[in-house]
Amino acid sequence: MSKFWNERVKKLEPYVPGEQPKDQKYIKLNTNENPYPPSPKVIEAIKAAANFKLKLYPDPNCDSLRRVVADYYNISEDEVFVGNGSDEVLAFSFMTFFDSKKTVFFADITYSFYKVYTNLLGLKCELIPLKDDFSIDVDGFLKENGGIIIPNPNAPTAKYIELNDIKRIIEYNFNSVVIVDEAYIDFGGESAVGLIKEYPNLLIVQTLSKSRSLAGLRVGFAMGDSKLIEGLLRVKNSINSYTLDRIALAGAEAAFKDKEYFQKTREKIIITRDRVTNELRKNGFKVIESKANFIFISHPKILAEHIFKELKKKGILVRYFNAERINNYLRVSIGNDEEMDKFVEKIKECVIE
Amino acid sequence: MSKFWNERVKKLEPYVPGEQPKDQKYIKLNTNENPYPPSPKVIEAIKAAANFKLKLYPDPNCDSLRRVVADYYNISEDEVFVGNGSDEVLAFSFMTFFDSKKTVFFADITYSFYKVYTNLLGLKCELIPLKDDFSIDVDGFLKENGGIIIPNPNAPTAKYIELNDIKRIIEYNFNSVVIVDEAYIDFGGESAVGLIKEYPNLLIVQTLSKSRSLAGLRVGFAMGDSKLIEGLLRVKNSINSYTLDRIALAGAEAAFKDKEYFQKTREKIIITRDRVTNELRKNGFKVIESKANFIFISHPKILAEHIFKELKKKGILVRYFNAERINNYLRVSIGNDEEMDKFVEKIKECVIE
Repeated sequence: MSKFWNERVKKLEPYVPGEQPKDQKYIKLNTNENPYPPSPKVIEAIKAAANFKLKLYPDPNCDSLRRVVADYYNISEDEVFVGNGSDEVLAFSFMTFFDSKKTVFFADITYSFYKVYTNLLGLKCELIPLKDDFSIDVDGFLKENGGIIIPNPNAPTAKYIELNDIKRIIEYNFNSVVIVDEAYIDFGGESAVGLIKEYPNLLIVQTLSKSRSLAGLRVGFAMGDSKLIEGLLRVKNSINSYTLDRIALAGAEAAFKDKEYFQKTREKIIITRDRVTNELRKNGFKVIESKANFIFISHPKILAEHIFKELKKKGILVRYFNAERINNYLRVSIGNDEEMDKFVEKIKECVIE
Repeated sequence: MSKFWNERVKKLEPYVPGEQPKDQKYIKLNTNENPYPPSPKVIEAIKAAANFKLKLYPDPNCDSLRRVVADYYNISEDEVFVGNGSDEVLAFSFMTFFDSKKTVFFADITYSFYKVYTNLLGLKCELIPLKDDFSIDVDGFLKENGGIIIPNPNAPTAKYIELNDIKRIIEYNFNSVVIVDEAYIDFGGESAVGLIKEYPNLLIVQTLSKSRSLAGLRVGFAMGDSKLIEGLLRVKNSINSYTLDRIALAGAEAAFKDKEYFQKTREKIIITRDRVTNELRKNGFKVIESKANFIFISHPKILAEHIFKELKKKGILVRYFNAERINNYLRVSIGNDEEMDKFVEKIKECVIE
C-alpha cells in the first residue's frame, strides 16, 4: 500500500494468471495454452517482419489485420476491432459499454477477470448463479441490467451454451450490450458471429492465444456492429494508439490465412480431449462435457486440492481454484497425446493411493 | 455516436497520431521516429524468439527485461515497470496515481495525450502556461495539486528543462506524484532517474520508440520507488496480465544490451539536428533550442500551415498543430542526413516563393 495510489487502486484485487514456471520441468496443463506450435507460416511471417521498418510506428488502425479477420468471418472491416490479447479487448469493452450507474451481469462461476474489471472501473455487478449442473441460467439474464458478459464455452467449466440460449439473452436485452467471450469457441462450439448483423447490441470477443497457438504473441479481437467497434476505437485511442506491434500484426495475419494448419491442430485437440474424457470417466472421475481446450474434472472420493498438489509433485501443473462451488474441481488444459497419457497415468496414481 | 457507449465515451476526444502513409513516397518527418534501423542484434533476437514457444504465454512480470533495464540504470528490478509503449505506461500511471477529487497539472503546450487521459478518466486538470519563450513556468507548479506530468524535453517545443528545476517541482510537491516523461531524454538531456532513490514521489517514463529505433515494437517503461511500481503492476494486472509479447520482450532486451549501437545512432541524430538548426537559422527561421530528435520551427513571414502544405506537396511530411500559441510552428523530426538535406532544400523553396 502507498499513499500515492488512488483510492480505487488501493482496493484492487488484480487477476492472478496461472503459474508460468521458468524451467521446463513441468508438463504444463494449467493455462489453456495450445500444445502445438504456431503455424510455420506464422514463424516465417514474423521473421520477415523483423526488419528495418521496426523503426516506424505500426498502423494505428490495424487495417490489414482487420481486413483478414473480416474476410475470414465474412463481415466487414469496420465490424472488427483488434487488440493486445482478448483481456485487453475485454477491458476496453467494459470501459466503453458499461457504466457505474447500471449493473453488469455475469455468472457466479466464470472467467475471474470480469470481476477484476468491475473493481477497476467501479462498476456494480450481479452474479447470476449457474445451475447445479453448471449450465447457465438463461432466465437469470432476462431482467433489467447495464450489460452482460458470457463466455461461450464458459470457463473454467468448459460448458457450451447453445446459440438459441445466447439469442434469447441478446434479444431480451436489446438496450444493453451483450458480450460473448468466445476464447474457446474453436474447439467444437458454434460462434455467434453470424448474429452481429441482426443484433446491434452483440459483441463477440475472440483470441489467437488458444486455437491459433499464439498466447505468446498477444492478439485478441472483437466483432460487432460498426458503432460498437467505433466506441472501442475511441477508448483505445484514448489510452494507446498502437496496441499491436508490427510483428504481432504480421504473425496474426499469417495465422488467420493458414486455415489448414488451424483445422488440423484444433481437430487433434478435440480428439485428444474426448479420448481423455472417456478414460477419466472410466476411472471414476466426473468430467463436465467440454467444448473447450480444457476439461473440468472432479473425483467423488479424493479432494481436488490434494490431487492438484500430488500432480505438481509428479511434474504436472493443472489449475485449482479455491473458490466456492468449484473448490473440488480441477481445470486441466488439453496437451498433446504424449502429455495427456502421462497425465492420465499420474492422476490414476493420485486416486489409487 | 451510439446509445451503447457510456457517457464518458460519448465525450471522448481521442488522440490523433501523426499520419502513417501506407506508401513510401514521403520523407516522413512527422512522428519523431528514428531514421536509423534498430540494432542488428535486435533483429537477430527477434528472429531467434520466433519459435514454438510463442504457443506459451509470456512472463507476465517481464522479470528478465526489467532486470536488463534496472542494470542499465543501476537501480533495482522492483523500481522498473515495463509496458506496451510509453503511452500505455502513461495511461496506467494516470489511472494509478491521479484521482478525480484533485487537479492534475501540466503545461498548456505539451504532449496532447495528457489531456486525452484526463478526459478518459474524468480527471480535473489545470494547464500551467509556458512562458513566452516556451520555457516551463516552474513557479506555476508550486501549489496544491493532485499530480504533475512534465515531459523533458517538452513536446512539441523540444525545450529541455534543467534538472534543478525538475528537482524544485518534485521537492515542493512531496505529497503528489510527479511524472517526468523522458521520451526524448537520450538526445542530449540528463535523465532524472538518479533522483528516484531520494524522492518516492518521482516517476520517470521512457520509451524504446525514439532513441532505440523501435516505434514498431511497442515497448515503454517507468522507473520509480518500488511502491509506485507496485501500484502500476496492480493496475496492469487488472487490465491485461501480458501487455508485452515474447518477441517484444526479446527485442527490447537486445536493444538495451547493444549500448554501442545506441550511442552511435543517437549521436548521429544530435549532430544532424544541430547542423539543420544552424542552416534553418541562416535562412531566417526561428528554431527553438532542441534536446530532442525533432525541432520546433517558425518563419517570421510565411505561415506554418502554408509551409506544411507545400512541404507535403513536395513529398515531405512534418507535423502541424492547429492549436493556440503554436499554430505558426512546425514540428520536424530529425531524419538522416540525406533526408534532412532534402528537407532544407525544399523548405527553402517554400519561403522564397
